[in-house]
Amino acid sequence: MDDVVILPAEKVALRDPILVEGLPGVGNVGKLASDYLRDQLRAKPLATVFSRFFPPQVYVNEDGIIRLVSNELSYYRNPKSARDIVILGGDYQGISPEGQYEITHRVLEFVHKLGVRDLYTLAGFAQGHVVEKPRVLGAATSPARVAAMKKLGVVFSRNDPGGGLIGASGLFLGLGRMFQMEGVCLMGETSGYFVDPRGAQAVLKVLSQAIEVDVDFSALESKAKEIDRIAQRIHDSEKGANEPTPGPSPAREDIGYIG
Amino acid sequence: MDDVVILPAEKVALRDPILVEGLPGVGNVGKLASDYLRDQLRAKPLATVFSRFFPPQVYVNEDGIIRLVSNELSYYRNPKSARDIVILGGDYQGISPEGQYEITHRVLEFVHKLGVRDLYTLAGFAQGHVVEKPRVLGAATSPARVAAMKKLGVVFSRNDPGGGLIGASGLFLGLGRMFQMEGVCLMGETSGYFVDPRGAQAVLKVLSQAIEVDVDFSALESKAKEIDRIAQRIHDSEKGANEPTPGPSPAREDIGYIG
Amino acid sequence: MDDVVILPAEKVALRDPILVEGLPGVGNVGKLASDYLRDQLRAKPLATVFSRFFPPQVYVNEDGIIRLVSNELSYYRNPKSARDIVILGGDYQGISPEGQYEITHRVLEFVHKLGVRDLYTLAGFAQGHVVEKPRVLGAATSPARVAAMKKLGVVFSRNDPGGGLIGASGLFLGLGRMFQMEGVCLMGETSGYFVDPRGAQAVLKVLSQAIEVDVDFSALESKAKEIDRIAQRIHDSEKGANEPTPGPSPAREDIGYIG
Amino acid sequence: MDDVVILPAEKVALRDPILVEGLPGVGNVGKLASDYLRDQLRAKPLATVFSRFFPPQVYVNEDGIIRLVSNELSYYRNPKSARDIVILGGDYQGISPEGQYEITHRVLEFVHKLGVRDLYTLAGFAQGHVVEKPRVLGAATSPARVAAMKKLGVVFSRNDPGGGLIGASGLFLGLGRMFQMEGVCLMGETSGYFVDPRGAQAVLKVLSQAIEVDVDFSALESKAKEIDRIAQRIHDSEKGANEPTPGPSPAREDIGYIG
Repeated sequence: MDDVVILPAEKVALRDPILVEGLPGVGNVGKLASDYLRDQLRAKPLATVFSRFFPPQVYVNEDGIIRLVSNELSYYRNPKSARDIVILGGDYQGISPEGQYEITHRVLEFVHKLGVRDLYTLAGFAQGHVVEKPRVLGAATSPARVAAMKKLGVVFSRNDPGGGLIGASGLFLGLGRMFQMEGVCLMGETSGYFVDPRGAQAVLKVLSQAIEVDVDFSALESKAKEIDRIAQRIHDSEKGANEPTPGPSPAREDIGYIG
Repeated sequence: MDDVVILPAEKVALRDPILVEGLPGVGNVGKLASDYLRDQLRAKPLATVFSRFFPPQVYVNEDGIIRLVSNELSYYRNPKSARDIVILGGDYQGISPEGQYEITHRVLEFVHKLGVRDLYTLAGFAQGHVVEKPRVLGAATSPARVAAMKKLGVVFSRNDPGGGLIGASGLFLGLGRMFQMEGVCLMGETSGYFVDPRGAQAVLKVLSQAIEVDVDFSALESKAKEIDRIAQRIHDSEKGANEPTPGPSPAREDIGYIG
Repeated sequence: MDDVVILPAEKVALRDPILVEGLPGVGNVGKLASDYLRDQLRAKPLATVFSRFFPPQVYVNEDGIIRLVSNELSYYRNPKSARDIVILGGDYQGISPEGQYEITHRVLEFVHKLGVRDLYTLAGFAQGHVVEKPRVLGAATSPARVAAMKKLGVVFSRNDPGGGLIGASGLFLGLGRMFQMEGVCLMGETSGYFVDPRGAQAVLKVLSQAIEVDVDFSALESKAKEIDRIAQRIHDSEKGANEPTPGPSPAREDIGYIG
Repeated sequence: MDDVVILPAEKVALRDPILVEGLPGVGNVGKLASDYLRDQLRAKPLATVFSRFFPPQVYVNEDGIIRLVSNELSYYRNPKSARDIVILGGDYQGISPEGQYEITHRVLEFVHKLGVRDLYTLAGFAQGHVVEKPRVLGAATSPARVAAMKKLGVVFSRNDPGGGLIGASGLFLGLGRMFQMEGVCLMGETSGYFVDPRGAQAVLKVLSQAIEVDVDFSALESKAKEIDRIAQRIHDSEKGANEPTPGPSPAREDIGYIG
């Protein structure tokens, strides 16, 4: 078996496409954002990525049907722009350093053949405390990209991220340069303690302007409020452990639900 | 050395064969079941699977003869059906994620050449408590398979297994789809604390109907009762640690014996 | 770089050669024995084995000269027999399961080309307590080998080694069968707590008869007595920690010296 | 993706070049020394080394621009000598044993084609206590090299380093012999507790004589004094935890700053 197997769903010709990457990570911000974008744009399946660098695992859906863990590429023909969009999401990042490099390199190779020259990678930036109004921090491959992102309100901080970026969002930019690709990493601030739709929303607001798509954020806002409610209940129940709880006790793992 | 080496014992032509997989895992249910089936059917050696993804280990039998750890394929020409049976058992699953993928892929490749299009994978499902009458939970590659298994009493639960299946039993189904194979995973409920012949029996009862073979369960029932007796003695001795024990004290590791 | 690099020192034609393997392991019995045999026979360098599955390490000798960690093959033309001898010793076994398989396979491939059809692998067997008169336990690839070894006093126990053999000594026999080689593993009983020349001597006494060489054991016996003295002093100093010690206090690590 | 990717910056012809290696390690002595040498000589970029055996990480500079972690080769045409100089520095050593071997081998292959026959590898030697006047310990590939280094004041100790050298500095010498290269490892004594410009200076003083370059040590001395000051403050604040501190409290991590 090849280290990475990419099975195309459809052969497509895209117009100067942009790759948007969002995989599981800090606060699941990247994955929340890329999944939401895919759903909003009703992006169509382009290819499935399997790899021996993912866990040896299948998921079972509510009907009892299994599917092997994977990353998924989908595409969107953008009527508002001269450039189409390719979205990468999925269940896992590679589970070893070698796996991270290999999967990223193979996906870049694949989208390079589709004509991708530009990358947006989406991630969370853990602040270690609750962030009321998350900013979007940035990193990029060129001064021109930095300038363009600053115009959209992205913060380029002298100190953050101090140790650099670890994982797919950085690696896509780093290895992308071997394919002459330019790109930007957008990092939504988040506590880092649970999945954070608000961080995802902040990131998507910048991204939607950059890649010229309309996104309706109402469903994401509902999800954010739901997480708020659960967090509030947990907070209350921990504060007043002796008082009667007004409603059904929230299952703590709900807040950590990934998807 | 190749990552995986498959040494055929015999060249055979099989009639539309079905693969039954059962390797060590939770409660050793899968391995118990596949070994029992092989012995009951007196299945013949088909091929041996060696791999650098197994531990670097040989077993020594009672006569002092060594053999390298392996997985074993055996076959059975089924007089009661138009379809023959191939059984996969063995000492270990691959000991790394990459190993799991590679070994599974290579075995699938091998049995694909034999004409296998259907898979049954056998496993245990850990409930964390003693299960008096183990149910058989299922997962499958298609709605048709789900429906067929439901008719045989298999339970498809909305919540179990929540996090999906990890290891060979899931991977054979997941990677099998790359070979256009369809399949079912049968999971016998078990405590997860020791080897569980009862879980294996539950799984085999479903399987034997599905693949149309007769299985005499008396030896497996004896084994289950023996495990019960040992468990009971341990329970008694822990309860009344100060009272004299009525017979020889059971060796605790007997209950964990794998085979 | 290849996973394993074997650099021949000399091109030799050997008469139906036997491979003797002894690498670091339990009580360092195997390595002590193979190094002692090489020195006694004044075996000549045959080839050096380097591998990326060894630690990334060089040793520095007393003159400040480095050498990369390796395994070493040497050969001895046996005037007392129609069969020559090849000895494998070295600094390490492969440090991962894959490494163990790959290095063993490559060495077998190499010695197979030299005509090796027979293997003796040397190891320690940890008893967990001091062993006054170490027995030699055995495991083999065929009943004929078992019978031959029994005649030399080797013990084939129904229970030992229970879990089989892990590491190079077992793997050489297990993988050797892929090269149609037959072989025997000789395990000298040892406490398992420190390097054990007595275990090595027990193993070599059997081996020297089997492969028809004369070995003078006096140096090994001196070494064993030296280890005894150090062990005794440690024992005394632990017993009477308050009493004045009669001589210089032994450095505890001396006893663990490997070589 | 290849395990190691070396991207040349420029095609150059060098006169009988010498490789100087200094990568992160004990006290960061090797990296400090090789970076300082590169800066002092204004060595020019020769090639960048990427590898899946490095962490999947990018660094972000103060302007928000990313770069993938790497090793860097640079070169210097030495007007004072008939031999040019190639310097290897970088962010990381390979993060697995296999990675160490593979990266070292590939770099050696690359510089071998440039004509490199001689190696100097720079490292720290941890003494576990503060070293006022660090000596430079040595290890080499031949007695002639040992003799040459002794003339420059390098100490070849019978006992140090006892367990040999682990990591790139040893491996370059060990694997270099497969390319018929000769070499020397220079180890600056250091406490091992924090980055140590003084150890780097000691090493560079020997090296600059050996490879015939002039080095101005003033910047390195400033850096050493700065580290001294920070260490002194930490020492004071720990000693007199109750007394008022005279100035701003030093951030402890400053002392561990790598670069």
